[in-house]
Amino acid sequence: MTTNAAGPGREFRERELHLNLFIYPGGHHEAAWRHSSSDPDRLLDIRFYQDLARSAEAVTFDGVFFADGPALADNVRYASRFRLEPFTWLSAIAAATERTGLIGTASTTYSEPYNLARLFASLDHLSGGRAGWNIVTTGAPQAAQNFGLDAHPVHAERYERARDFLEAVTKLWDSWEDEALVADQRSGLFADTDRIHTVDHEGPLLKVRGPLNIPRSPQGRPVYVQAGSSEDGRAFAARYAEAIFTAHQTLRSGQDFYADIKKRAARLGRDPGQLLVLPGISPFIASTEAEARRLHEDFNELTQPEYSLELLHRLLGIRLTPQQLDGPVPRELIETQGERGNGSRFQLVLDIVEREQPTVRQLLHRLAGARGHRVFAGTPEQVADQIQQWYEQGAADGFNVMPPWLPGGFDLFADHVVPILRERGLFRSAYTGRTLREHYGLARPASRYAPQGAAVSVA
Amino acid sequence: MTTNAAGPGREFRERELHLNLFIYPGGHHEAAWRHSSSDPDRLLDIRFYQDLARSAEAVTFDGVFFADGPALADNVRYASRFRLEPFTWLSAIAAATERTGLIGTASTTYSEPYNLARLFASLDHLSGGRAGWNIVTTGAPQAAQNFGLDAHPVHAERYERARDFLEAVTKLWDSWEDEALVADQRSGLFADTDRIHTVDHEGPLLKVRGPLNIPRSPQGRPVYVQAGSSEDGRAFAARYAEAIFTAHQTLRSGQDFYADIKKRAARLGRDPGQLLVLPGISPFIASTEAEARRLHEDFNELTQPEYSLELLHRLLGIRLTPQQLDGPVPRELIETQGERGNGSRFQLVLDIVEREQPTVRQLLHRLAGARGHRVFAGTPEQVADQIQQWYEQGAADGFNVMPPWLPGGFDLFADHVVPILRERGLFRSAYTGRTLREHYGLARPASRYAPQGAAVSVA
Ligand SMILES: Cc1cc2nc3c(=O)[nH]c(=O)nc-3n(C[C@H](O)[C@H](O)[C@H](O)COP(=O)(O)O)c2cc1C
Ligand SMILES: Cc1cc2nc3c(=O)[nH]c(=O)nc-3n(C[C@H](O)[C@H](O)[C@H](O)COP(=O)(O)O)c2cc1C
Repeated sequence: MTTNAAGPGREFRERELHLNLFIYPGGHHEAAWRHSSSDPDRLLDIRFYQDLARSAEAVTFDGVFFADGPALADNVRYASRFRLEPFTWLSAIAAATERTGLIGTASTTYSEPYNLARLFASLDHLSGGRAGWNIVTTGAPQAAQNFGLDAHPVHAERYERARDFLEAVTKLWDSWEDEALVADQRSGLFADTDRIHTVDHEGPLLKVRGPLNIPRSPQGRPVYVQAGSSEDGRAFAARYAEAIFTAHQTLRSGQDFYADIKKRAARLGRDPGQLLVLPGISPFIASTEAEARRLHEDFNELTQPEYSLELLHRLLGIRLTPQQLDGPVPRELIETQGERGNGSRFQLVLDIVEREQPTVRQLLHRLAGARGHRVFAGTPEQVADQIQQWYEQGAADGFNVMPPWLPGGFDLFADHVVPILRERGLFRSAYTGRTLREHYGLARPASRYAPQGAAVSVA
Repeated sequence: MTTNAAGPGREFRERELHLNLFIYPGGHHEAAWRHSSSDPDRLLDIRFYQDLARSAEAVTFDGVFFADGPALADNVRYASRFRLEPFTWLSAIAAATERTGLIGTASTTYSEPYNLARLFASLDHLSGGRAGWNIVTTGAPQAAQNFGLDAHPVHAERYERARDFLEAVTKLWDSWEDEALVADQRSGLFADTDRIHTVDHEGPLLKVRGPLNIPRSPQGRPVYVQAGSSEDGRAFAARYAEAIFTAHQTLRSGQDFYADIKKRAARLGRDPGQLLVLPGISPFIASTEAEARRLHEDFNELTQPEYSLELLHRLLGIRLTPQQLDGPVPRELIETQGERGNGSRFQLVLDIVEREQPTVRQLLHRLAGARGHRVFAGTPEQVADQIQQWYEQGAADGFNVMPPWLPGGFDLFADHVVPILRERGLFRSAYTGRTLREHYGLARPASRYAPQGAAVSVA
């Protein structure tokens, strides 16, 4: 898709703003579930999530997105940090929607390629081509013991497996050519087995014979989304990703990342336009800026230091007590060494500490909003301005919208920010495509085994 | 549930007939997809399956069931033998139904306990307690190479892992007590972590720490269904299963199996009433017996010997050519030795050969219907008579209905057989429960970690 549907009289545009709704149980602010506008009884109710996705679809969002990890967070005592399973959850959401994309996180460290390939192929079939895969190597080190390992594989090892894994599953998704399913009742040929291929993948860590036991899906394969920002993470994204989720606090940091990742993709011979950069934004929205700030404060007052001190330990390796809340962050205690699940988030928090020299409490409040993603309090115009600025000044192709609480925090965005973005000709007013690839303006890959050659296949 | 709702004036019954719809793409007869009443274009369309489940729900079936295996069948050239992925497919079906159970097959050989536990917990949540797990060790030996193994683990090894796996996932499903999710907005206690338990499973083959990262689901855990009939399979079922799918050609064989499995369960201290035996039945239905037989013949004429010779090779280890179709089955070539995925199906086919001394073509037609399950051609009354006889004479607690083609073959059952079964007071006219456990009359297990003790937990 190279044009948008901004409405009659608007110019056709080559480039188009993309928006996802990032769904976190209750919302992204750690205290969202405690706020009077939340209904904690609905947190396990699929209809709550189906309604959210329908709301996103009603304002023509590109997709909805679920994070994931195969372990329980210790601080579930203080916040809604259980993990709904994305494949099941998104499949039920698919059944309640028609157009919006469905992006699920799945780990290359703790999944089997053949099983994961089947789950995504099925999701793509049943949703009519709306599946996206947020490829992660898993941040939470405590996942290891849920899979019989003594320790989480180190960063470089995880990325080695991730590459191997991507090669294997991409081959599996290519293993049925588009024309392989014949189903000719008269001749009795159900599948043309000359067009179904074993893949015989033999990587450094993984061996997979194939073929997949599911015909090629509407999108060929799910859209590849990635969310790592380390050196390994960027190299991986530049090679494989079609969209990148990323966290930035400042326009400058967003621009640097954007330029870097597009350059890396170009250097690998890819079209940088086929790799979308989508930073997170978590906006508190009200009719005046002062009101929006008060709203943000209301949420911060509901936070529990025990929760965020745990988060701080995870992010910076630093263990502090509630007694230290109103002192400075003791820089010298920050563990800059050692294996950390989330290297890029570490850098981001360190930058806040250096730039703003916050008290511990102030830092915790900065993180409470969206775990390091950009939190912003303002009027609908101010939110739209920020989005436009990042979009036009080379920091973003769109955004992962992370409402502080749900559904109210998203309704404000849908009702007040989306109309402004449309008014400015930035965002579509109607879907022009059916699949997530079409919403994102991404090409549908050909099977590497198809006679015309592996035109768009990776690697 | 100890009573049924057969309608006003009917006696309350202690025992109740159970019926599942076993859904196979196109139907169970190998040539179903070629028949003029089939629409091969709908085989990958989720709405086709949602409609089927709605039809099953409309006649108060206990559940729908999907088989599965992580490999492609060689004979996909001749029949619709791809494999929709059950978790995604059932989740989308859950969203289109309210009451009917959702039973998915998943392998203990080729899954990770933590991932599988999450998939079922989520399916159970999003369906309001309708999930069932058909526990298999995987029949298809060619699955091995899709998971980097040189060979399919041998039968005894697969069952050893299955037992270990069951212990591990059962603990995971117990790891959150029912009361662990508090979500008290005022106090800020989201989850009572004293009621969430690591499981520290250390079995012969599997190590899993836990806890699960999803709160306890409506049914506590999915209903445990099993479908193995070998010695190991029966021992496993007697210990863990709450329902058993099984294939029998004669009343006598069904009775023997039923008596044996109930006795085994009792010997392990279980209530035999909490272990349902559900044989498969694949009925061709028409208003006269002659017409039903003709219908069956119509389907048989569409079969392709290449397909079933492949199946025969898999079941009996015997390789025959189309030239041998009209001769006798050369008994001396049947490989009775060696590792075979499906030991009990082997015995069943061998019994047919000995009892009926069929030609190769006749045997292939016997298998074409439902891969060894009981195929039956008759009037609605005759089908109901068979069901009643097996139910009342100690061969079945219900049936896995395997329509030869879909949806038509099921519509005939729903429209013509179900009313007779209701008329006779055998089958419910309305659901009395909401969950699959309630439909099946099975107790909801308590968490082994709950203070009152592990009253109903397995092992
Ligand atoms: C928007 C966003 C969402 C993420 N979601 C997940 C997630 O669901 N699960 C996970 O394990 N990591 C998640 N991450 C973390 C990254 O995927 C990645 O694992 C982490 O940043 C470590 O990789 P890196 O060192 O290359 O940055 C997310 C990151 C971002 C920016
Ligand atoms: C109704 C029914 C359905 C079955 N479905 C599957 C299936 O989906 N996948 C599978 O691998 N095996 C399936 N089986 C086979 C058994 O689960 C089991 O793996 C096989 O019988 C070998 O075990 P056994 O030697 O104990 O009988 C099914 C069997 C029956 C009777």
